[in-house]
Amino acid sequence: MLKSAELCPMQLSARELAALLGGVIEGNPDVLVSRPGKIEEARPGEITFLGRDIYAPHIYTTKASIVLVGKDFQPKELVQATLIRVDNVYAALAFLMEKFAQPAVGEGGISPQAFVHPDARVGENVSIGPFAVVEAGAVLGAGCRIGAQAYIGRDAGVGTGTIIHPGVRILHNCKVGGNCILHANAVIGSDGFGFVPQPDGSYHKIPHIGDVLIEDDVEIGAGTTIDRASIGSTIIRRGVKMDNLIQVAHNVEIGENTAIAAQVGIAGSTKIGRNCRIAGQSGFIGHVHIADGTTVQAQAGVAQNVEEPNTIICGYPAFGYRDFIKSHAVFKRLPELDKKIKRMEDRLNKEG
Amino acid sequence: MLKSAELCPMQLSARELAALLGGVIEGNPDVLVSRPGKIEEARPGEITFLGRDIYAPHIYTTKASIVLVGKDFQPKELVQATLIRVDNVYAALAFLMEKFAQPAVGEGGISPQAFVHPDARVGENVSIGPFAVVEAGAVLGAGCRIGAQAYIGRDAGVGTGTIIHPGVRILHNCKVGGNCILHANAVIGSDGFGFVPQPDGSYHKIPHIGDVLIEDDVEIGAGTTIDRASIGSTIIRRGVKMDNLIQVAHNVEIGENTAIAAQVGIAGSTKIGRNCRIAGQSGFIGHVHIADGTTVQAQAGVAQNVEEPNTIICGYPAFGYRDFIKSHAVFKRLPELDKKIKRMEDRLNKEG
Amino acid sequence: MLKSAELCPMQLSARELAALLGGVIEGNPDVLVSRPGKIEEARPGEITFLGRDIYAPHIYTTKASIVLVGKDFQPKELVQATLIRVDNVYAALAFLMEKFAQPAVGEGGISPQAFVHPDARVGENVSIGPFAVVEAGAVLGAGCRIGAQAYIGRDAGVGTGTIIHPGVRILHNCKVGGNCILHANAVIGSDGFGFVPQPDGSYHKIPHIGDVLIEDDVEIGAGTTIDRASIGSTIIRRGVKMDNLIQVAHNVEIGENTAIAAQVGIAGSTKIGRNCRIAGQSGFIGHVHIADGTTVQAQAGVAQNVEEPNTIICGYPAFGYRDFIKSHAVFKRLPELDKKIKRMEDRLNKEG
Repeated sequence: MLKSAELCPMQLSARELAALLGGVIEGNPDVLVSRPGKIEEARPGEITFLGRDIYAPHIYTTKASIVLVGKDFQPKELVQATLIRVDNVYAALAFLMEKFAQPAVGEGGISPQAFVHPDARVGENVSIGPFAVVEAGAVLGAGCRIGAQAYIGRDAGVGTGTIIHPGVRILHNCKVGGNCILHANAVIGSDGFGFVPQPDGSYHKIPHIGDVLIEDDVEIGAGTTIDRASIGSTIIRRGVKMDNLIQVAHNVEIGENTAIAAQVGIAGSTKIGRNCRIAGQSGFIGHVHIADGTTVQAQAGVAQNVEEPNTIICGYPAFGYRDFIKSHAVFKRLPELDKKIKRMEDRLNKEG
Repeated sequence: MLKSAELCPMQLSARELAALLGGVIEGNPDVLVSRPGKIEEARPGEITFLGRDIYAPHIYTTKASIVLVGKDFQPKELVQATLIRVDNVYAALAFLMEKFAQPAVGEGGISPQAFVHPDARVGENVSIGPFAVVEAGAVLGAGCRIGAQAYIGRDAGVGTGTIIHPGVRILHNCKVGGNCILHANAVIGSDGFGFVPQPDGSYHKIPHIGDVLIEDDVEIGAGTTIDRASIGSTIIRRGVKMDNLIQVAHNVEIGENTAIAAQVGIAGSTKIGRNCRIAGQSGFIGHVHIADGTTVQAQAGVAQNVEEPNTIICGYPAFGYRDFIKSHAVFKRLPELDKKIKRMEDRLNKEG
Repeated sequence: MLKSAELCPMQLSARELAALLGGVIEGNPDVLVSRPGKIEEARPGEITFLGRDIYAPHIYTTKASIVLVGKDFQPKELVQATLIRVDNVYAALAFLMEKFAQPAVGEGGISPQAFVHPDARVGENVSIGPFAVVEAGAVLGAGCRIGAQAYIGRDAGVGTGTIIHPGVRILHNCKVGGNCILHANAVIGSDGFGFVPQPDGSYHKIPHIGDVLIEDDVEIGAGTTIDRASIGSTIIRRGVKMDNLIQVAHNVEIGENTAIAAQVGIAGSTKIGRNCRIAGQSGFIGHVHIADGTTVQAQAGVAQNVEEPNTIICGYPAFGYRDFIKSHAVFKRLPELDKKIKRMEDRLNKEG
């Protein structure tokens, strides 16, 4: 299932790294590292970095084998680790992290233990893990990787280069674009929550015959659920980033490059603009429109439209963030204020 | 795994649809449609509808092949689509949606890739998808459909006609009634969260030997978790509808026809009445009783019994909704109120 | 897959139970029971107990076959059930619950339907359920039980005696200690939510090359997600107990014996102390430190460090619990207070 290279984690010498990074070595050029670590926790065989000055004291005690430092770093004591001096420590680190990143989902072709319906269309260089299911009519774009135990429903689609982690469910007819990442146990295309109340108090289910449409470059967190539309599509636009355990109801639309933190809930037919930032555990009622660039603070409950772009809102029901903070400051003093009012009233009554 | 009819989505002509709906055609009676769409987004091959008047302008530009309209609709411009005039547009639409709805979980019998223990009892016309597991002693009622990769534990039961979506886990001894729908990755029967604190600060686990009992006509959302009882049963009564990512703790009971929106949390041994409506992200502490017909607003934190039926509550800790709204209106003006009090105090001090 | 003993639930007679519990029988010593039940709901074949006095009336009507009662219980009417008199009813009950507890995850060895990579290392007496996946380099400690359809990623580890329920995903490189329980559909090691905003509004993904480290004696609830660190480890210390649908972000650390209720969210790099109690649906922003022994009330939003151990906090943004309750009491009276202030102002204006 795995290429042999993955079984033997990459090791690089200080010499090789300095060449890759255009850096200058101080110390043993032959020392080997296999992954990055934090300066205060790193173990031998790891490479770390000295970013902000407050971490400088750790460089004399770190167990890391190599430390990336700036060109102008001046040690005040003996440093055990090999140093690599670079122009920009953070740029070098980012480069290294991508270098050391291992594919999260195997690249070993189609597992003989997968179930791929003969009427599914599978592109070139697709990987499918053990016990994954690809139903009839499903289309898998070139180079996409379907993790173990994932489910791609009837007539569903997964775009080029997209990574589907283990246990993800993409249900019938739903479409995921190219270059997306769907994390473990996410669910795309569960029925929306729609019922018609009956006179006897019971509910009649509204069929959900729409789908979910996820554009390119989207990331969906672990355990997140996105319901299909009743009619039409629930739409996640290009570049949206969603964290874990988020709930997106039927017929919602989320605009380009909006980022949504964990455990947010968005009720049916709500439309969120582009480039919004939605903090964790906030919620949106149904059928509201949120302007582009809106920032929603953590745990806010959004109960009406946000018309003005680039607004920051907070609280339940949510209103302007600065106003909320001012009101909350007085809320903390309410018992004191209450006593003050009582005293003034007593005084007025006495005087009156 | 799939019947061939499912591979070839249904196509209906305007003539056939008008006959089904008792409608009158204007335009091409031979045009074919395969699914409904929204009037402003519909594509050729889709049927749409003109509901509220505000959507009327779209009828002149819609790409839909057929539009359902009322008997008395008077076009003001040329309409490209074929019209079908009906008495009640919404009733016709509901009929159509059920007509076009496709089975979400296959009906193709028992997959050779499923694991069904020889000591499980499987009713007639049961479907079981690839890589599903049905353990010893489990009982599957006639016509129930077990999705791919679902898990039916030891001595668990699934009633007649119930649909279990991919990745659902129904753990040992738990019982699900007939005509239920459990959406992808829901978990029924995880252990309750119960521990006895020890003198050294650690916890001793309380065994959870009870089960979960779900009655008929219940719908459970994607990723929702329902814990088993410590002793006895966690009970979900007939007709309850639960959305995605809800947490139901051990020994909870939820009354008939109560509807619960996404991400609600209900702590241990709480008992919720019938016909309640619980909005998203609200929470309940343990061991409280909630009267029939209670409405709980979004994000409310319910911290005590609700004795009076048909109460509406809001806020944390939750109290009457109207009172909450009045208090919140003053909360927004608190900084202004604070200044006013300061001014009055200064004036009194000056006068005094 | 299952031992035959599991297929035949244990039955014990009153005589055997009395011997086990050191109790004294009143009634039929040959009556058999197979599981405990609650006194007001129990059915024939179940054993129940009389704990608090308020339940005493149920003993005359219970359908249970056996009731555990204290040495000094004096019936006021005829009791149908067989009684077993014991010194301490709760201690006897706890003993019985552990006696009747059935293994939640089978103990039947390695399923031929599991996928175990030849380069995985599997300890003695390990069970692996059908359609579970154990990738190359993974290490399974002696006696651990891997449920059906669970996923153990490349180079991941599971300690001795740990129980992994169906559908759990332990992704590459993550390590779970001994004597842990991970409930169904939990996800360990999904990527953290980290992106670098680009000038055009899009996001560049930060690779997450760290892992998750879970120490011994930890319990993780159903559907809970724990993200891997960007660099280093997300750490769950020994004895931590976590409920369902919790979100733990990258690089978080949770101290020994801290208990966390359902649907809590903890943002990136936050560090929670030992012996804390975190109530349901509360949330923590990133990069804060929470002192040992902190209690966080339900739905609280923790937005800054908690420096003082054993603090109780509440509200959003969270502050001292007692202060919150006092402020909330005034919040409920705000409309009345507002009117009072208006009246005082009018009076001052008239007098002035």
